[in-house]
Amino acid sequence: MRPVAQNPHPDPLPEYPATGEKSCVPFFGDAMAEMFADRLVAAIDQKKAPICVGIDPIFEMLPDAVAGSREDRDANDAEGAIDAIFDFTAAVLKIVAPLVPIVKFQSAYFEKYYAEGVEAYYSLVQEAKELGLLVIGDVKRGDIGSTASAYAAGHLADGPYGEQEEMVTPDAITVNPMLGLDTLEPFVKTAKEYRKGLFVLVRTSNPGSADFQDVLLEDGRTWSEMVADKLAPVAEGMVGASGFSSIGAVVGATQTHTMESLRKRLPKSIFLLPGYGAQGATAEMTQAAFINGSGAIVSASRSILYAHREKKYEGVGDWKKCVERAVVDMKADLAGVVKKAYCGGLPARLT
Amino acid sequence: MRPVAQNPHPDPLPEYPATGEKSCVPFFGDAMAEMFADRLVAAIDQKKAPICVGIDPIFEMLPDAVAGSREDRDANDAEGAIDAIFDFTAAVLKIVAPLVPIVKFQSAYFEKYYAEGVEAYYSLVQEAKELGLLVIGDVKRGDIGSTASAYAAGHLADGPYGEQEEMVTPDAITVNPMLGLDTLEPFVKTAKEYRKGLFVLVRTSNPGSADFQDVLLEDGRTWSEMVADKLAPVAEGMVGASGFSSIGAVVGATQTHTMESLRKRLPKSIFLLPGYGAQGATAEMTQAAFINGSGAIVSASRSILYAHREKKYEGVGDWKKCVERAVVDMKADLAGVVKKAYCGGLPARLT
Repeated sequence: MRPVAQNPHPDPLPEYPATGEKSCVPFFGDAMAEMFADRLVAAIDQKKAPICVGIDPIFEMLPDAVAGSREDRDANDAEGAIDAIFDFTAAVLKIVAPLVPIVKFQSAYFEKYYAEGVEAYYSLVQEAKELGLLVIGDVKRGDIGSTASAYAAGHLADGPYGEQEEMVTPDAITVNPMLGLDTLEPFVKTAKEYRKGLFVLVRTSNPGSADFQDVLLEDGRTWSEMVADKLAPVAEGMVGASGFSSIGAVVGATQTHTMESLRKRLPKSIFLLPGYGAQGATAEMTQAAFINGSGAIVSASRSILYAHREKKYEGVGDWKKCVERAVVDMKADLAGVVKKAYCGGLPARLT
Repeated sequence: MRPVAQNPHPDPLPEYPATGEKSCVPFFGDAMAEMFADRLVAAIDQKKAPICVGIDPIFEMLPDAVAGSREDRDANDAEGAIDAIFDFTAAVLKIVAPLVPIVKFQSAYFEKYYAEGVEAYYSLVQEAKELGLLVIGDVKRGDIGSTASAYAAGHLADGPYGEQEEMVTPDAITVNPMLGLDTLEPFVKTAKEYRKGLFVLVRTSNPGSADFQDVLLEDGRTWSEMVADKLAPVAEGMVGASGFSSIGAVVGATQTHTMESLRKRLPKSIFLLPGYGAQGATAEMTQAAFINGSGAIVSASRSILYAHREKKYEGVGDWKKCVERAVVDMKADLAGVVKKAYCGGLPARLT
């Protein structure tokens, strides 16, 4: 319904590969590189890190230096809380921008503060994009027909003309497929139109996810496997020059028992793997999601954002140093896995 | 995490039953009547209409009298669109408040306009409650652990202290259960604490809902039936004096093949039945959802909001008259069904 506006904030294309740089990655060309999947694959290569930093800003967990000491901190001072969340997130973005290709904003922690929180969400999405980061809006929306179109307009389309023209939305959002394939269509349409991406929930990382996602169907597949099978042709329709689709899948890094099966069923989808760190998944557990060392991003939120609270980062320095160190450690931790995922050895770009 | 604030906007209890009024409905008493399910059952009886009006304000479909003629209307003038949506919705609420017990706001049509739209959403929720209507926020949220708690805080809890103390949230919200029973817990906890309600998606009304909800499990149940079975004990934990639970279920009125089965599996849940009218469900199709003429609300959005666009309401008067007539017609249409659902005849309160 919205016209295709000239995007006032074109996605900052990674400068990779620079002329003369030794690399085994094909250059996709300007037009094709604009597809979300291609931009993401290029950014992962540029940053040499298949890592997504999850932005889950929880006022009660923020460093004292940002939100005040425990005695001074008033969780019921909403304006103060939003300001602290804003400052904290903006600082985190600056720290991680040179290190990782993409961040994921958890919408709930902003919606908690009503419209004011939502305003902060969009401002911070813009900050992240201006820093050259790709952005996922973790909104897990899903609804029928024109309602899904309205969600896609608000969360994925570029801003329309008029006073909201400059509105910046994420490069991709998470969507919930429970309502059916027809309810994904409006999201896919918007993603195509604006060269954005989707990450469809296929198997989540939480302990109770087995309740409704691991149940066995009469044909022997799990419910999640069936969702993956139905999603595969949709993903096939948005494959870019990188060989990956802009229709990705959320698969909990904790779900090792089904990772290989889901990867086989969705060979073109980039897997977004939450659950690393605070939720207990290790680097090793993500291995089956990678295809020749590519096609997956491991997401970590609290183990990075709140590294200053962890014993192992005592003495590292202030909270910002702890965030940086946690990302660097995660990158090193994953390097071995990515390496193993290459049968023929690691390409130069990821050494 | 949020403290229990004194609610500055106590839910307006329906005045029913007035002393001396002849009725077969038990008076639940002040304390018990505060449970969402009891308030809803009482309000249905008071208004003599098991009807929920769906607030799906779509700028392009608004009456010319509100949004200007087709030539003047500029969908890219976001401020103008939000103003028109606000005025339209406020007028609809005034028309339907004396006629129906409850309205359902579709969040997507507000989120489409970013933070400004969300601000309008909360203002209109407050307007509705001040008019004595119960309110459902159709947000279909669902996420893990503390993320679900954050959604519950923003969409279901009363406003915290401080400058957001006066924030008014809906009496109930819709939630998506795909992620698992553990992801419903934070919503249930908040609903209990604030005497609010939930409507859990069990079987949606859209054509594609069969894709993932009607698949047969190895034990012969459909996926939706399994969800219903797992939800039943959760609902059992929040049953009020009315005999109904504040944990309700969304079951598309279009899904007649499974309505009886789901009703048996969820005997205590109030069914919210979308799909009447524009989506094709008839009054007759909702019958199996009612238990002795009670325990269900039929939701209609476009057939009421945009009645002025329908041929059968030509000549009725302006758009407001059309809205009113559509509600009155729906009420009459459903009366017969409710009547049939009583084996022993219709109680005085619903004649």
